Amino acid sequence: MEVNPLRDPRDRRLPRVAGPCVLVLFGVTGDLAKRKLLPAIYDLGNRGLLPPGFSLVGFARRDWAHEDFAQVTYEAVKEHARTPFREEVWKQLSEGIHFCPGEFGDDGAFDVLSMMLKEIDETRGTGGNYAFYLSVPPKFFPVVVEQLKRTDLAKAPDGSWRRVVIEKPFGHDLKSARELNEITSAVFPESSVFRIDHYLGKETVQNILALRFANTLYEPIWNRGYVDHVQITMAEDIGIGGRAGYYDGIGAARDVIQNHLLQLLALVAMEDPTSFDADALRREKEKVLRAVRLPADLSTGTARGQYDGGWQGGEPVVGYLEEQGIPPESTTETYAAVKLEVANRRWAGVPFYLRTGKRLSRRMTEVAVVFQRAPHLPFSQDDTEILGHNALVIRVQPDEGITVRFGSKVPGTAMEVRDVNMDFAYGESFMESSPEAYERLLLDVLIGDPPLFPHQREVELSWSILDPIEEFWASQGRPEGYASGSWGPASADAMLARDGRAWRRL
Amino acid sequence: MEVNPLRDPRDRRLPRVAGPCVLVLFGVTGDLAKRKLLPAIYDLGNRGLLPPGFSLVGFARRDWAHEDFAQVTYEAVKEHARTPFREEVWKQLSEGIHFCPGEFGDDGAFDVLSMMLKEIDETRGTGGNYAFYLSVPPKFFPVVVEQLKRTDLAKAPDGSWRRVVIEKPFGHDLKSARELNEITSAVFPESSVFRIDHYLGKETVQNILALRFANTLYEPIWNRGYVDHVQITMAEDIGIGGRAGYYDGIGAARDVIQNHLLQLLALVAMEDPTSFDADALRREKEKVLRAVRLPADLSTGTARGQYDGGWQGGEPVVGYLEEQGIPPESTTETYAAVKLEVANRRWAGVPFYLRTGKRLSRRMTEVAVVFQRAPHLPFSQDDTEILGHNALVIRVQPDEGITVRFGSKVPGTAMEVRDVNMDFAYGESFMESSPEAYERLLLDVLIGDPPLFPHQREVELSWSILDPIEEFWASQGRPEGYASGSWGPASADAMLARDGRAWRRL
Repeated sequence: MEVNPLRDPRDRRLPRVAGPCVLVLFGVTGDLAKRKLLPAIYDLGNRGLLPPGFSLVGFARRDWAHEDFAQVTYEAVKEHARTPFREEVWKQLSEGIHFCPGEFGDDGAFDVLSMMLKEIDETRGTGGNYAFYLSVPPKFFPVVVEQLKRTDLAKAPDGSWRRVVIEKPFGHDLKSARELNEITSAVFPESSVFRIDHYLGKETVQNILALRFANTLYEPIWNRGYVDHVQITMAEDIGIGGRAGYYDGIGAARDVIQNHLLQLLALVAMEDPTSFDADALRREKEKVLRAVRLPADLSTGTARGQYDGGWQGGEPVVGYLEEQGIPPESTTETYAAVKLEVANRRWAGVPFYLRTGKRLSRRMTEVAVVFQRAPHLPFSQDDTEILGHNALVIRVQPDEGITVRFGSKVPGTAMEVRDVNMDFAYGESFMESSPEAYERLLLDVLIGDPPLFPHQREVELSWSILDPIEEFWASQGRPEGYASGSWGPASADAMLARDGRAWRRL
Repeated sequence: MEVNPLRDPRDRRLPRVAGPCVLVLFGVTGDLAKRKLLPAIYDLGNRGLLPPGFSLVGFARRDWAHEDFAQVTYEAVKEHARTPFREEVWKQLSEGIHFCPGEFGDDGAFDVLSMMLKEIDETRGTGGNYAFYLSVPPKFFPVVVEQLKRTDLAKAPDGSWRRVVIEKPFGHDLKSARELNEITSAVFPESSVFRIDHYLGKETVQNILALRFANTLYEPIWNRGYVDHVQITMAEDIGIGGRAGYYDGIGAARDVIQNHLLQLLALVAMEDPTSFDADALRREKEKVLRAVRLPADLSTGTARGQYDGGWQGGEPVVGYLEEQGIPPESTTETYAAVKLEVANRRWAGVPFYLRTGKRLSRRMTEVAVVFQRAPHLPFSQDDTEILGHNALVIRVQPDEGITVRFGSKVPGTAMEVRDVNMDFAYGESFMESSPEAYERLLLDVLIGDPPLFPHQREVELSWSILDPIEEFWASQGRPEGYASGSWGPASADAMLARDGRAWRRL
């Protein structure tokens, strides 16, 4: 379909209900499928967003019949779905549940899958529209893509579509990310590739765009004229859990900064897109990522750490090096902080401090825009002594919402001013509870609405930012230790102290 | 004491505790004394803001001994004080309570007063520092001032001070306000005259200054570039009660707009003062009042009404013309609204809508700064259909605080945006409960700190704004009726509708 490029893209609004299609899920025995994907599919059905003939095909190395997979799905839904269980919804959904047993390298299994999909098209009217969700370890990724090519499943006949959904990690550096992309792009056109960064599916993250661009209030002060600095934090209280095999050698920066935090930075710092059209949105995010500059001195402008043993939540916890499966000489960082600049007219000179870590004091993701102090305070100096900086904080999780910190008169005094908080809580303001990120993202895949999925260019730009830091760290030996339950290594505090600033205590 | 005029006025901070002095209260039998002034004196004592020798002299046409007045004060304190009753505070206060019986025209009574004050100076060490609070009907005003002159009480010996406190009405038009001032200024220097507009003593009103000038967030958008219009509302649910004698012939505009609402307008619209020094603050307020322009057509740019009978709070209530003491042909308005412009670089073209009325739907005073819509909305039109204007609302009373209305993403939709409120409640954010306006203002009188008291120039400027409106209304016959418990007359709604706007529903 040809679209006049000068037509207002805001008019091109897709219907927000999926049309007939099949979702093929590779890796249905994994934790993500059980806790997030299968429940999200049910929740979409419950919200009336899936068509009657919608079908789900599970693929895994299990000797399961369709009913077995349906039972697995049923249990996942019962335990993890967000919306109430309704028998009639489950009944309709379960009628479309199929299972295809096999290994990723097994041609026969994929031939069976191919036939199964054709049958489903005939019996359930799914019209040859397939979404392939690859919830598989990185090493199997090329294998599955190759199978989809061999069986012609990647190729959409006229009037139908084929999409592939891939999860991070999108490589572990720029080079591997490009190699990975070559594999996909040889089989699927870029417009059919949906890269999931589940943070972008979160309501609070999308609300950054609404907050900035639906309002008059904030955009006028959203620049170097008023902003002192920005802090983006994703703190976890848990350790690596059972993920030693994946995590070691990857570390906090690759695991979180490269994708989640740089995406948050892009949304906070970008210019207004003309519309929320995928092209327009991605172009603006890319522009920001292209403008990101690393600190001149990486030894003072970055920090990393590795958690020691200690106490957390009243329980003793082991240090990273004592975790099962971690080699005792590992130099993988579990805490990473970096100071970035966005070198453009809006942001020049404003530091963006990003930090993430495991075994920190609490679980909390937020973006804090910290403003300069007022240029002149007509108050007597004593009266503003404890007045801090104004701040606008977007609380991504938990306790989603927005807090504005500002100075208010203290009752009963002449004109003493003290910081107070003005609060907006997502949960209190809307009757609707927030959909899970995966509900939104799965629906977008089935609808074919790509704005919330990073483009390969964004992935590559993010690695370009991270690679020099990783290279520097690799030359520096062991990361600094930090106590479990603390707020990370001393060098991270020193990094901000040198600038006369401090991390927010959360 | 000579002060270098170039010294930073922010350094000249007065101690916030009163020194030795006597407060002489004329009109102690009135409602204001009982409900507000006497309890406020106790509350100041309880907060440790009065000196040990502080003395209170009541003056009235009553055959009371000191003990009788002390008993009246005791009852007022017990019933109306904000802070808890403490025996030792009351004991110390009551030791300084005196009463002087007499009529305002009785020379002998004032001679007694004069001797009484000298005695108090000797026995309680009050050093000849007297504040005369004239809580008396307007017609007695010149009489009392003349007596203070005759007895030399108005004249402060070296090293002591004499101050006079006067309550509104400061006249009923420009001419009478000037005449009134001539009487005072012949006896007291302007620096010793404290005009009480109790609204300026309210914490939330003073917080307008803190909000604007202690913060970075709001001032950049506090101008015609971003503000669509401003609404200042003081709504009362009560009728005129027992005030027929005062109210009739005065009306809503003289009673409320001339003082409270124009003062609020001045605080909201003024440029930043270099300090909160009385001179600096008043100069900026005057500058605003001087820049106020009336609508070219007063018939469409103002509205007035008179309440009809009806129901309010589940009770039948009579119309204004049926109130006791109101002549049946009265044209006094009980509702007044006016559209003003502040003709300067910051505000040109931004309407300031002021309204006040009795027997409205509820009691509520607020200042609402309503912003323009964002210049471009990158959302599809359907998604922002119910998005209103951003607004910052200063809730003066009741439920003191600040609300910011802005657009937020609706959970679960593509990018639908809806208005939500972010809230700051004074009562929740501070341990300290807010002092009553009269506590603050009485303390400021005793300290000699004048910023919160309007200067005569402000009074005159306010009358210059109101006089042409009153003149126009006088030529227009009877005001429009409105139902008790409604939001005022239809013409007030039409006034905003012509501009494509609407009053806030409160």
